[in-house]
Parts: sequence; C-alpha cells; structure tokens
Amino acid sequence: MKFKAKSLNLSAGRPVAIMHLDAARALGVHVDDRVQVTAGKIKIIAIVDTILSGFFKEDEIALSEEVMQELDIKTGDVVDADPVPLRQSAHYIFEKLSGMELTEKKIFAIIEDIVDNALAESEIAYFISAMYTHGMSSEEIAFLTKAMVKTGTRLFLKKKIIADKHSIGGIPNNRTTPIIVSICATAGLTMPKTSSRAITSAAGTADVIEIISPVEFSIAKMKKIVYKTGGCIVWGGALGLAPSDDKIIQVERLIYLDPEAQLIASILAKKLAVGSTHILLDIPYGESAKVDKKEAVKLSKKFKKVAKILKLNIQTILTDGKQPIGNGIGPLFELRDVLSILKREKNAPKDLEQKSVMLAGKLLEMTGKCKKGEGEKIAMQILNSGQALKKFKEIISAQGGNINRINKLRPKFFHHILADKNGKVSSIQNKKIAALARRAGAPADKTAGIYLYKHLSNILKKGEKILTIYSETKDKLKEAVDFYKFVKPIEY
Amino acid sequence: MKFKAKSLNLSAGRPVAIMHLDAARALGVHVDDRVQVTAGKIKIIAIVDTILSGFFKEDEIALSEEVMQELDIKTGDVVDADPVPLRQSAHYIFEKLSGMELTEKKIFAIIEDIVDNALAESEIAYFISAMYTHGMSSEEIAFLTKAMVKTGTRLFLKKKIIADKHSIGGIPNNRTTPIIVSICATAGLTMPKTSSRAITSAAGTADVIEIISPVEFSIAKMKKIVYKTGGCIVWGGALGLAPSDDKIIQVERLIYLDPEAQLIASILAKKLAVGSTHILLDIPYGESAKVDKKEAVKLSKKFKKVAKILKLNIQTILTDGKQPIGNGIGPLFELRDVLSILKREKNAPKDLEQKSVMLAGKLLEMTGKCKKGEGEKIAMQILNSGQALKKFKEIISAQGGNINRINKLRPKFFHHILADKNGKVSSIQNKKIAALARRAGAPADKTAGIYLYKHLSNILKKGEKILTIYSETKDKLKEAVDFYKFVKPIEY
Repeated sequence: MKFKAKSLNLSAGRPVAIMHLDAARALGVHVDDRVQVTAGKIKIIAIVDTILSGFFKEDEIALSEEVMQELDIKTGDVVDADPVPLRQSAHYIFEKLSGMELTEKKIFAIIEDIVDNALAESEIAYFISAMYTHGMSSEEIAFLTKAMVKTGTRLFLKKKIIADKHSIGGIPNNRTTPIIVSICATAGLTMPKTSSRAITSAAGTADVIEIISPVEFSIAKMKKIVYKTGGCIVWGGALGLAPSDDKIIQVERLIYLDPEAQLIASILAKKLAVGSTHILLDIPYGESAKVDKKEAVKLSKKFKKVAKILKLNIQTILTDGKQPIGNGIGPLFELRDVLSILKREKNAPKDLEQKSVMLAGKLLEMTGKCKKGEGEKIAMQILNSGQALKKFKEIISAQGGNINRINKLRPKFFHHILADKNGKVSSIQNKKIAALARRAGAPADKTAGIYLYKHLSNILKKGEKILTIYSETKDKLKEAVDFYKFVKPIEY
Repeated sequence: MKFKAKSLNLSAGRPVAIMHLDAARALGVHVDDRVQVTAGKIKIIAIVDTILSGFFKEDEIALSEEVMQELDIKTGDVVDADPVPLRQSAHYIFEKLSGMELTEKKIFAIIEDIVDNALAESEIAYFISAMYTHGMSSEEIAFLTKAMVKTGTRLFLKKKIIADKHSIGGIPNNRTTPIIVSICATAGLTMPKTSSRAITSAAGTADVIEIISPVEFSIAKMKKIVYKTGGCIVWGGALGLAPSDDKIIQVERLIYLDPEAQLIASILAKKLAVGSTHILLDIPYGESAKVDKKEAVKLSKKFKKVAKILKLNIQTILTDGKQPIGNGIGPLFELRDVLSILKREKNAPKDLEQKSVMLAGKLLEMTGKCKKGEGEKIAMQILNSGQALKKFKEIISAQGGNINRINKLRPKFFHHILADKNGKVSSIQNKKIAALARRAGAPADKTAGIYLYKHLSNILKKGEKILTIYSETKDKLKEAVDFYKFVKPIEY
C-alpha cells in the first residue's frame, strides 16, 4: 500500500511506523506488528503503532528518524508499507514450543529475525518459553551461541590467546574482575573484558568502573585500549556484541525467566564475540545464590559440553556463594574495596582478595603463563609488587579515566544498624542484601549502598555495628532502614 | 518522578507515554514496559515508548489522548510517572509456565491485568505458552472463562432461554449461522449471535454479513435489535465482550498458537457474556480440518466438563470436516450461497442447507421448542415456508441493512480451472482452499474468492470446470492462479 511519509522528528531507538487505524486495518496489521517499508530498492522492517484520531490522514505514515535515514527519504515522499509475511522463524519457534529440537539453520533464522526487528517481543517471549519448558541440547545451545555472535559486531585481535573470566553472578560485591584483569594483563595476558550493568543486583562491574572512567566505547576504540594495555574493563552493552542477546534479556526480565540455554549462550556469545580462546567461569553456589550445589554441577557440565562443540577452552570453578564477597555493596563501596586491595591497604577485604588472586592464578595456569600449581603464587606476587595497581591505572587512563575521581564522591546520609543482642552471624541473604542496597538507591545513586562489618560465623556483641546503610536522600535512607527491619537480611 | 505532560494530540487506541530515553533509564523502564501515570488521585497505566532525540526534553512526557482524558489534564500540567511494580500476575504466569495449577484468584488477576494494560504483550505470550505446554484443568478453564466475562461488558436480556450455535471453524464457507439464526428466531428462540471476522480463513460471518448490513453495534443497540427480531448477526469484536480474549488472540495469532484452554474459554466467555443458556457446538473434524476425529472427541469432552462447572447447557456435534461446505468461498460467494438457500433456489448448495437445517433442528430440540426427533423436520418447514427468509430480511433491516445490497457487487476478474484429465475428486484440502481465496484477495476484497463446482467423490471429465477464481485485480488473480498450480488444493 502506498503512503505519504511524514517524519516523526524523533528517534525512537527502534524503527517505528505510525499509521491511521483504518489504514492498519486495510493492511491487516495491528499495534506491535511489523510492516516492511520500501522506498526504491531499500527496505526496512518497522514496528506498527496506530492512531485513531489526531494529526494525520489515512494515506500518511509517520516514520521515526531511523526509518527516514535508512530509506533516505524526506517528509512527503511516497513509500510502500506492507505487512511482513509470516516469518519462517515464527514457525520454528512454534516447533520448539511443541518440543522439537531445532537445527542450526532454524536457530540462525530466529536470531537473525530478532536482530532485524522482524520478530515482535511477544514472539521472543514464545521462544524464551520454549527454551524454558523444553530445555535445549548442547548442540542447540552451541548453534544459538554461534548465531548470536554472527549477527553482531566482533572484535578481532591479532593474538593467539585471549583470556576471559566470568561469574554467573548473584553474589553482592564479588568485584573480582578489575583485580583479575590488572594481574593477568601485567603477566602478559590479553583480556578484552566486557562487563554488564546491574539488572537486579546493587551494581555491575560497568556501574562500578564508571565512577572513575568512561565505559562506553566503539569496537575500534576498545581495540586501541587493549593493544595499548593488554586489557580493558568496558560496558558490553554499548558495543553491539550479540545484540539478539540484549533483546532476549529485555523480554526475559519481565517475568524474571532465565532459561539455562539462554544463560549459557548469552555468556559464551559475548566471549566469542571478542575472540576469547580461554574462559574461566566462576559459578558461586549456595542457598541464596543463583544456583545450589547440584545445579552448579549440572550447569558446569553443560557449559563444558557446549564449549567443547564451540572449540573453546573453558574451566569452571564452583565457589562458595553463601554470602557477599567483600565489604562494600553499591558502586562506590565496591570500587573502594577493589582499590584497597590493589593499593595493598591493611583494611582491604581478605575474602575478595583471596578469591581474585585464586581466579587470576587459575587463568595464568590455563593459558600457559605459568606452571600448574604456581598461578596463585605468581598472581599474589604481581599484586604485592604494586604492578597490578599500576596496570589498573594504566587501563583506566587508556579509557580516559582517572582513579582519583573516586575522591570526588562522598556518601551523604547514613544509618548504622547495631546488634540488639549478642550472637554469631548464622546467615546473610544475598538477594535481600542486594535488594536493600537498591532500596538505598544503588546502582543509579553511585554513593548509595551498604558497608558490611561482619561475615558468616563472626561474633557480634550487643550494640556493635553490623552494617551501615548509605543513601543520597533522607527518604531513600528511611525506606532502606524500614526495609532492613522488614526483611532482616542477616541472622545472628 | 515528576514530568511536564504534553499532549501527543493523538489517540493510539491504548494508553501510551513517550519519554526521553535518559528519563526512561533513570526510571529503569524500557520500551513496551508499563508506567503508572498519576495526576491528583487518578492513576492510569500507560505503555512506554522512548525517544533518543527530537522535539522534547528529559522532564517532558508525551501522553496519548486516552491518558490526557482519563487524568483530566492538559499540556503543561505536572504528572508523576513511575515504573509499575512487578505485578503479582506476572509471578502467577511464571508459576503456570513452571507447571503449577492456578487458583481462581490468580487467573482472575492475570485476566484483569491483561484488560488493564498492566501486562505487556510479551507477558501475555508467556501465559499463552504456559497454557500451550502444560494445558489447563477443566476448573482452570472455567475460572478463565469467568474472569474473561467479568472483566468485559455484558448483554442482559430478560429471557429464560438464550440460544447460541458455534462452530470451532477451519472449514471454508460452512456459513450456517445466518440460516440457523433465521430459522430459530422464526421458531421463537432468542439468538443474540455475535460472529467473528476472518483471521486465517477466507471470510468470517461478520465479513459476509457486512456486504448487506452494518455489523458493528453498541450493546444497547444490539439489545434493541434482538428484542425486535429475536436475533442478530453482529461482529463480536466491537462490543467489548471478553476484551481480554481479543488481546490474547492478537498475541496468539503471531505464531498461530491456539491452546485448547484458550480456545474453550474464548468461545464460552463470549456466549456467557451475551447470557447464553443453551449452546450447540459444531466440531468439524477431518484430515485438513482444525482437529482429527480423536481430537474432536477429546475436545468435545473437555467442553462438556467445563460447561458443567459453568452450569451451561451445551451439546456438541461432531461433523464431517473433510471438505468445504457450500460452493462459494469468500464474502460475496458465501453470502450468495446463504441467500440461495433462504430463497429456496434450485442451485442452492445442498450440503450447506442440510447441515444448517440439522443444526437448527438440534437447537430447537435442546431448548424445548419441539419434541426430540422432530427438530430437523420443523426447521425444514420453516425454511420451505419462506419464513426464514422473511426473518433474515427483518434482522438485516433492523441492523440497518438491506439484502439487495448484494446486487451492487460484481466480481471483476476470473479464471476457470479445468480438469486436465478424467478422474474422481479424492481430496479437497480446506487450508489450501482458504489460502487460495486469500491470495485472490478475500476477505478484504469482498468479491474475491472461489466458486467450487465439485465436491468429494464427484466425477470430473477432462476439460470440465473444477473451480473459478475471482479477483478484484489482475495481479491478485495471476498470483492466485499461480498459487493454485503450486499447492494443488484438489486431487482427482
């Protein structure tokens, strides 16, 4: 059907076509359906919104800037808009939802259509449901991973060995990445590390590093940083690596679904996209962690099976996830913990230090940078020598940051939580601690969060500080304190 | 968060709030998420769209007319917009997707939130997937039906017996409704019949009747028509009956899913909403029908179980669905078949006549309008007497139509398909026939479609006409003819 194009004068972050309801009916399309808009030889798929009344006519179509630019047209130009015929990929999703195993070709078609906006969010939800209810074989997950990589941008580095360390998450703080990257890059490893922002946690590594440095880069700029320093700590979301994964996660988030197949493919795709050859995977388990021990063992096996198909060298390590690792929770406090370790300060959290050194050591062994059994010792030497701190500064500086920026931030309001009886800490609930820090304002408020004075098995005397809650506003502080009293995240 | 409201100057058919991407990030909401917009004491849930650049600022929020009116505000007024906290209903959907059985309260919460726009299309897709993969118990389906009815508008007629006939569909033409309503209303039954438009077929009853009469009415107007004539044949979609069902169907449509639970609840809810007490359900079965014999038996049992819980008098009838019923396929040609039967013309299709009379007879028996075993005879008498035609004209006239409008329509282009050998018709594929009529332009093009000269077991001589394809444009005709050659819907 022919329409007169009209610029919406706005960029919606996705291609949008607004048409009169009567025109949509004539085309047989509904809100959120897809139409193919054609001008000359250029075609683009746009998402339909309809209008009942208002400022336009039946033969007009209002297009977002993305569409106008892609089609190279201006207001008044004539375009064709037609319903996108039923995608084969929608049928493949139906097949998976009915319990069939999908071929590489079919999985690729689904992922390609997700990236091209040819599948609606609802169709993506069907795909997620199918993965959730029927699971996926290792082969299917490998195909999914490959499809995610192929349909995104990639980083190509001229290096034989590219290392990565990843944690499946769920443990507050646990901010090992900056320390591991600094140690390993000092030892000569290449670590183009991409990190995430918080989804349900109090902070992601990207939220933490952002305090002292930009974290959003192009692939070209990231490449320069890595060639210069051996590593980087950037936000993965800005790079366009495995963009289908970002869209899938956005739909998963709605009902907190996280099917195993998608979890594995999501992690491996982002590693493959930056060329990783060696991956160390941290799987923390425990009562309030993402997985319990049995699930951790199962997940580890599945990761290894998929990695084998993908010819990736992977090692998994099951770690204690019973409680937060480190003392600070929230961007500023987690960064303080990291810096105190790199600077070899006395009050630096030992648990976070030990875990970081242990993981860095494993990675050095895996990649042949040292003999088996010597990794941890060498990692510790690098940390103690001050070279890791130097490397960290070098990376932050290459990213256009400066570690002294941390000094500009000061927490505003705080409230100490004191023990109301003598006791021994018997439980610290990870999810409740994360939720508490979020109530206080983290991660959006960089100085909001928690400082934990006690860990499991520590003795508490009546009147002693258990933790301090920090907020940027009095309201949020009050809300967080009330929340603490309500959910009681720590038992003793 | 506070925003300055700005009218979008358009009605989107659903509440929409457009905000700057940075504001959305600060709120932690994404495109298609829901925000609660508050002005004074009035709250409304709106669907988020974001803008990267363009005509507005971070502290502005552009609202569709629906939202401006509901909140009773004008451009420049200050509103609060906050993320809608995770709905309990989303958690219930998660439970169902994990295989749990849902309570009446939980199902009601889901359906209520669907109607209130508090659940996104993707969340509805999760719900559909859950019904599809885990099925629903008869109790759950009854709860679903009740929830759908309660959250919509209803028709209350002061009648003890209200009758309905419904076919689960899948058979081209099969246009029994206008004939049955005309016969039964003549016999004194009350039949407030709501019909659908085509989704995947060549025509729905509403598409057919629309040729000679308006089919979109308010509940009040529908009531008047039924009180006056005893029946009506209107489009159900305009009435606001079970609006959750319409939304669910819109999301199902995307990948042609049709879970049994939703199919049953959808049908029963629309009957309950108009007050039906007696329902006759036609379940055509066959190789290219919606269900095979085994599935038809299963479906029939399930319908009866659910109806029993809902205290509905239901009878199911399994009919032969091996081939189209009637000769014409497409709005105009199906209406011609119906009128030829009502007018007692010699060339009227016998199969459609017999089926309509048989079903009308059953309904007369079910509702006590005649003795068991006599329904069909009485229905035939009413048809032969010309009273059914008179009643049909009366209903169409009460709806503001006129059966003579059919004469204004003439098919434009046609192409005869001739037998290329002698033979006996061994197969007529329903789905392919429907797809063929749609290629020709049905149902949007009212005069597009097919005329079938032969049915199963008929003898064909080389050069004899099998069917004629009609189109409103030469292009569509050519496309349909090519499609015919490609899919070969008829074997002989």
